[in-house]
Amino acid sequence: MVATASSSKISKIVNARLLLDHKIVQDSYLWFQDGKIIHPQNLFFDQHRDADEIIDAKGALVVPGYLDIQINGGYGIDFADNEGSLEKIQDDINTVAKGLLQYGCTAFCPTVVSSAPEVYNKVLPLLNKRKGDAKKGSEILGAHIEGPFISHEKKGAHNQAIFRTGKNGVREFDEAYGPELMKGSEAVSIITVAPEIEGVIDVIPELAKRDICVSIGHSAATISEAETAVTKGATLITHLFNAMLPFHHRDPGMIGVLGAVDLPVPENPLRHPAASNTSPYRNKPDPRPFYGLIVDGVHVHPNSVRIAYYAHPKGCVLVTDALSALGLPRGVYSLGGRDVEVDDNGAAYIKGTNTLAGSTITIDQSVRNFRNFTKCTMVEAIEAATLHPAQVLGISDRKGTLNPGGDADLLFLNDDLEIQRVFVYGEEVELHKTK
Amino acid sequence: MVATASSSKISKIVNARLLLDHKIVQDSYLWFQDGKIIHPQNLFFDQHRDADEIIDAKGALVVPGYLDIQINGGYGIDFADNEGSLEKIQDDINTVAKGLLQYGCTAFCPTVVSSAPEVYNKVLPLLNKRKGDAKKGSEILGAHIEGPFISHEKKGAHNQAIFRTGKNGVREFDEAYGPELMKGSEAVSIITVAPEIEGVIDVIPELAKRDICVSIGHSAATISEAETAVTKGATLITHLFNAMLPFHHRDPGMIGVLGAVDLPVPENPLRHPAASNTSPYRNKPDPRPFYGLIVDGVHVHPNSVRIAYYAHPKGCVLVTDALSALGLPRGVYSLGGRDVEVDDNGAAYIKGTNTLAGSTITIDQSVRNFRNFTKCTMVEAIEAATLHPAQVLGISDRKGTLNPGGDADLLFLNDDLEIQRVFVYGEEVELHKTK
Repeated sequence: MVATASSSKISKIVNARLLLDHKIVQDSYLWFQDGKIIHPQNLFFDQHRDADEIIDAKGALVVPGYLDIQINGGYGIDFADNEGSLEKIQDDINTVAKGLLQYGCTAFCPTVVSSAPEVYNKVLPLLNKRKGDAKKGSEILGAHIEGPFISHEKKGAHNQAIFRTGKNGVREFDEAYGPELMKGSEAVSIITVAPEIEGVIDVIPELAKRDICVSIGHSAATISEAETAVTKGATLITHLFNAMLPFHHRDPGMIGVLGAVDLPVPENPLRHPAASNTSPYRNKPDPRPFYGLIVDGVHVHPNSVRIAYYAHPKGCVLVTDALSALGLPRGVYSLGGRDVEVDDNGAAYIKGTNTLAGSTITIDQSVRNFRNFTKCTMVEAIEAATLHPAQVLGISDRKGTLNPGGDADLLFLNDDLEIQRVFVYGEEVELHKTK
Repeated sequence: MVATASSSKISKIVNARLLLDHKIVQDSYLWFQDGKIIHPQNLFFDQHRDADEIIDAKGALVVPGYLDIQINGGYGIDFADNEGSLEKIQDDINTVAKGLLQYGCTAFCPTVVSSAPEVYNKVLPLLNKRKGDAKKGSEILGAHIEGPFISHEKKGAHNQAIFRTGKNGVREFDEAYGPELMKGSEAVSIITVAPEIEGVIDVIPELAKRDICVSIGHSAATISEAETAVTKGATLITHLFNAMLPFHHRDPGMIGVLGAVDLPVPENPLRHPAASNTSPYRNKPDPRPFYGLIVDGVHVHPNSVRIAYYAHPKGCVLVTDALSALGLPRGVYSLGGRDVEVDDNGAAYIKGTNTLAGSTITIDQSVRNFRNFTKCTMVEAIEAATLHPAQVLGISDRKGTLNPGGDADLLFLNDDLEIQRVFVYGEEVELHKTK
């Protein structure tokens, strides 16, 4: 895309360190207009215009806004709650969307745990794609529906009474979720399924055809079942390590997919990670899926984060899996109708048990933890919350990079990766406190 | 080292692809004299000599001989057997040493499973360092003593009746192994211990002082215990994945050491892996230990091999852990006094159980499997059986590379990494069959 003649305001960020093409670039500017990043060349040559507004970044890192593709709620609100009027639910969604901007999360996939059909019918229409807004809230990228086609063995905080199988094929899925599923990625961006559940494996290609990202998780799949799911079109692993069989060296299960070498070259390379030094094919997209990681230091040990990352660096996607307790103090909160207790460390457990139920970590803290745990570069840490999740959703042409044509969702960060300023479609967000 | 004036025969390998400085080099020659690789420069300038013998490699890969730092025996012989006369035991050792040359294994650490003091007293003196010989056999690099300071929980094929603790410190170790342990690496190259066993952790520095490589294994250590052992001076993990706690994402145990970032910079960098792109410190030796891997496809799933390798590429050491059944057909064999059954796949189990007891794989097959499992380069596969084990033992100045000054232990390989010719100290080995 190139900028065309226009009288709307042109902004230019100066004195920034820009994340461009996987590098931190010091000697360049970032231009945007009408909420989009633009290529300045055409301005000079065709329009003879300079910027109307100069934004001084004062040496900050300027990077794309963070995406969170797995978040259950926050501020006491759970996206699977369906109590009250549609207006009330809509207000709740808006509250979370607005709150997330404070953490630099400029786009997200509201995540709904296993629910009954009436819940999906009521809630999903409110979670359709919706543009971000500096005042109104973070962009909605379509819902992430997690379950109910998942494993009783790896139920986590889900209510297994409503788990289902796919023995009647995709019809079973349409019955479970209602008409929203037919809209494809307009309504549903990601669906987490357990590939070993009857009928599920054959539905994966059907869902992928609707442009929905199929993720495998909450599953007791063996390595063989997991690899079959990937071959059928699954392109993501839901919160790697959590709610799956532990890694066993003789059958490494779903985690072992990170070591796969015999997967076929992907048919749709755009939904796969880029090649890395660990890819089976060095000059083709990586046939392995992306994988979400909860990087609060509780769900996954820092050393495990590091091992996964170095096994498959370009596939790593930071997710918060945050629940209603995000942004609230310790206490007991609701997740899909179940009581969840948050301890002093921010870890959330099913009340009275040892089962982790989600985190209360923010996406910006996840990025900082990830960098500390892995000692990766700043670029690598940031791309795990920007470029990679955008690739998962097939939207890296407009999210997750600072390339011309993309949405001007921007973060200004200091060298500790703390948020200084946030822009959504070129408009600045009012932050509650300066960090 | 440089060649000095000498009248002994000088050999020159031509038409070879040499593994030099981590690369395959096409346009160079390899010179050796008196069993040592020499730098030709001094020949030309000081001695005005050319080679006495030209060896045409016919385009073969020419690489260092393989080292196997964990091998229990072969050809019906177990290094922990102490039946019969010293002459009989010596003959048995010679039989194995000679047989190993057929697989390109030009140096090895004969490995003795947990045994009683009288066994060590009888056997260890026969396993002292001994130079290799093209006719007499593979070089002995000192014994690898595995146990008896190991865990009942992770006993593998070991006889737990003779397990011990280190509650009396290093004295307990000297009692267990006898006077040979005082000789240090002259007699004992590696000792495998479980760091969580009482007293063991404090003995690690004492053993390291004797120039013995301390390896952690046959252990139920947590990540914290394993990291403490490394901080105290352990520089190897014994057959990673096998005979240790399975990797759990919330406490990844000994396997999690591959993801360690907070270990101190090693005091003795020569016994540590080189820095890689996954090292905590990019320009210093890697503080993580080396790790043995049994790459028969049974002990460790190929995907697990791959994940470990990419987490810590410079630390990987291929070991066979081969037992007396190596080189023999399926059947029942002895290992440290226990019956071990070898199935049609060459996997060896404690008779009547599911517990793996060692492999029947050869080191050259391990290298080929490793390359297939990981899709690594030829150089990376070969270094995991040459340079890396030499570094484990602190002998990379003379073994594991083709650098001038090193021993002329050489393999000629085809592109499938099959053995074509073998040289020990510059003398060619007679191979039983051409592969």
